[in-house]
Amino acid sequence: MKKRPIIGITMGDPKGIGPEIIQKALQKASIRKLCRPVVFGEATYFDWKKSRRLTPCQCGKLSGFSIEQAAHACLEGYVDAMVTAPISKAHLRAGGYTYPGHTEFLADLAGVPVQDVRMMMAGPQLKVVLVTIHEPIAKVASLLTQRNIFETIRITHQSLNNRWGLKKPRIAVAALNPHAGESGMFGNEETKVIVPAVAKARRQGWKVLGPYSPDTVFYRAIQGEFDVVIAMYHDQGLIPLKILDFERAVNITLGLPFIRTSVDHGTAFDIAGKGVANPSSLIAAIETAVELANNERRKVPLRSE
Amino acid sequence: MKKRPIIGITMGDPKGIGPEIIQKALQKASIRKLCRPVVFGEATYFDWKKSRRLTPCQCGKLSGFSIEQAAHACLEGYVDAMVTAPISKAHLRAGGYTYPGHTEFLADLAGVPVQDVRMMMAGPQLKVVLVTIHEPIAKVASLLTQRNIFETIRITHQSLNNRWGLKKPRIAVAALNPHAGESGMFGNEETKVIVPAVAKARRQGWKVLGPYSPDTVFYRAIQGEFDVVIAMYHDQGLIPLKILDFERAVNITLGLPFIRTSVDHGTAFDIAGKGVANPSSLIAAIETAVELANNERRKVPLRSE
Repeated sequence: MKKRPIIGITMGDPKGIGPEIIQKALQKASIRKLCRPVVFGEATYFDWKKSRRLTPCQCGKLSGFSIEQAAHACLEGYVDAMVTAPISKAHLRAGGYTYPGHTEFLADLAGVPVQDVRMMMAGPQLKVVLVTIHEPIAKVASLLTQRNIFETIRITHQSLNNRWGLKKPRIAVAALNPHAGESGMFGNEETKVIVPAVAKARRQGWKVLGPYSPDTVFYRAIQGEFDVVIAMYHDQGLIPLKILDFERAVNITLGLPFIRTSVDHGTAFDIAGKGVANPSSLIAAIETAVELANNERRKVPLRSE
Repeated sequence: MKKRPIIGITMGDPKGIGPEIIQKALQKASIRKLCRPVVFGEATYFDWKKSRRLTPCQCGKLSGFSIEQAAHACLEGYVDAMVTAPISKAHLRAGGYTYPGHTEFLADLAGVPVQDVRMMMAGPQLKVVLVTIHEPIAKVASLLTQRNIFETIRITHQSLNNRWGLKKPRIAVAALNPHAGESGMFGNEETKVIVPAVAKARRQGWKVLGPYSPDTVFYRAIQGEFDVVIAMYHDQGLIPLKILDFERAVNITLGLPFIRTSVDHGTAFDIAGKGVANPSSLIAAIETAVELANNERRKVPLRSE
């Protein structure tokens, strides 16, 4: 590997803490040693005295434009990965972008159906990929299908192959119900949809294990038994991850044709401009993007595909 | 405190690992220094060569009888606490006891309605109390009511007062949905039932906080912000607990008129009689029973109420 990877960083909402944590992160010599950062955004609005006067519409346009630019730079091979700072969905909408969030926006820019991308949360001790994300608990069971569980396994398998260089990743699948349903007494989604999805994945020759009791599968993963855990719903995956790796958790979008990581927090408008924002999550997101970009460059000539 | 507390230990199912882990635990000098153990069970069947010949009906009768004896000893003040080894619900039923588990059995023996007892799981770093226990995820939302959430808080408050000697316990309540429902976008059980239950609890003068986002409340608890977390469902509470305190987690029944702790595992019939069972969970259960019994004896003359 000859050169440090080029990491595109979007400024996020200019009235949020994005600009501040980017400046703090890029002042670290350790980060500059790891990568060549390129920030996508409007330099003027890295000054709080100016950005504080922006309207939601202006904030939304600036956030949206920096995401578009960074994504195009990824797609065209000018940068090796992108890292996103937090945006406001309300501001984004005011700026004329109707996407509910980064993921849908990036899938659209990349020409990938949104059902083909998944959210991974990764920390130093644990990686989880979610089948369902921002859904009420009351709806989770009805949203699980053999198809979306299998697709989550497929995307996870492919990403661990391609991005992490794991040839035969050990993928554990969490059950939905307590004690994995205890033979149907505490729910039947295991037998109805999860077991068939796991069986189908195994028929591809992948090392897919479970479904396992949710209250022990994450413990087993951190003991080294699995490389990743497929979680059926948001808190099933995020509770163990945040217990273990609170400030070091990074959000990684799987299934895009480029590497994208993200901070694990919002715009924090309440503390923006005060100089007190913590850049840990952004630093972790940059470090993860660098790791994945280096894996990618080891494997194939830059953007040759 | 003059004497070590007397701890009643039930033998559990004679064909399970109960007899083996009891013998292993009681061989520890550290345990004998802490308490005066009294085992409830039939001595003959601490010998695997004899117990292996028992029928399910005989196993159920032996398990059930030892629970009855231990509970009566608690109620009459002959012992200071009881610790239960694992039983088989199928064997218990074959022996003529129709209870689904220890909790219902003990509530009945103590004359307490089963809806007035709750399961706490406690480890060195975290204590959680469950509003719903062995329920499918699809049913959890519909089972949450203002009444059962408030009652869980009430029983928890009373137990932390009485058994742990915490005058003003800091009780955090977990939300049900991701991001605590994000203002209703990801579910409305927070505003419908959890917030009103918390408000009612606060009106009693108790320090009850939340509902908080499930993916951060447990982290905050282990940082020392709360004494206990009320979890809405089994895995919400047990995932973080088992991540942190895997072999040290103890099941404690709150709301009974006596102290009862339990191992956090089943009969493990597959390894019974092989001498390989791990007594850690039983040791932790005995240590917790001793701690609670000592708290109780500091407070009031033994069984004077």
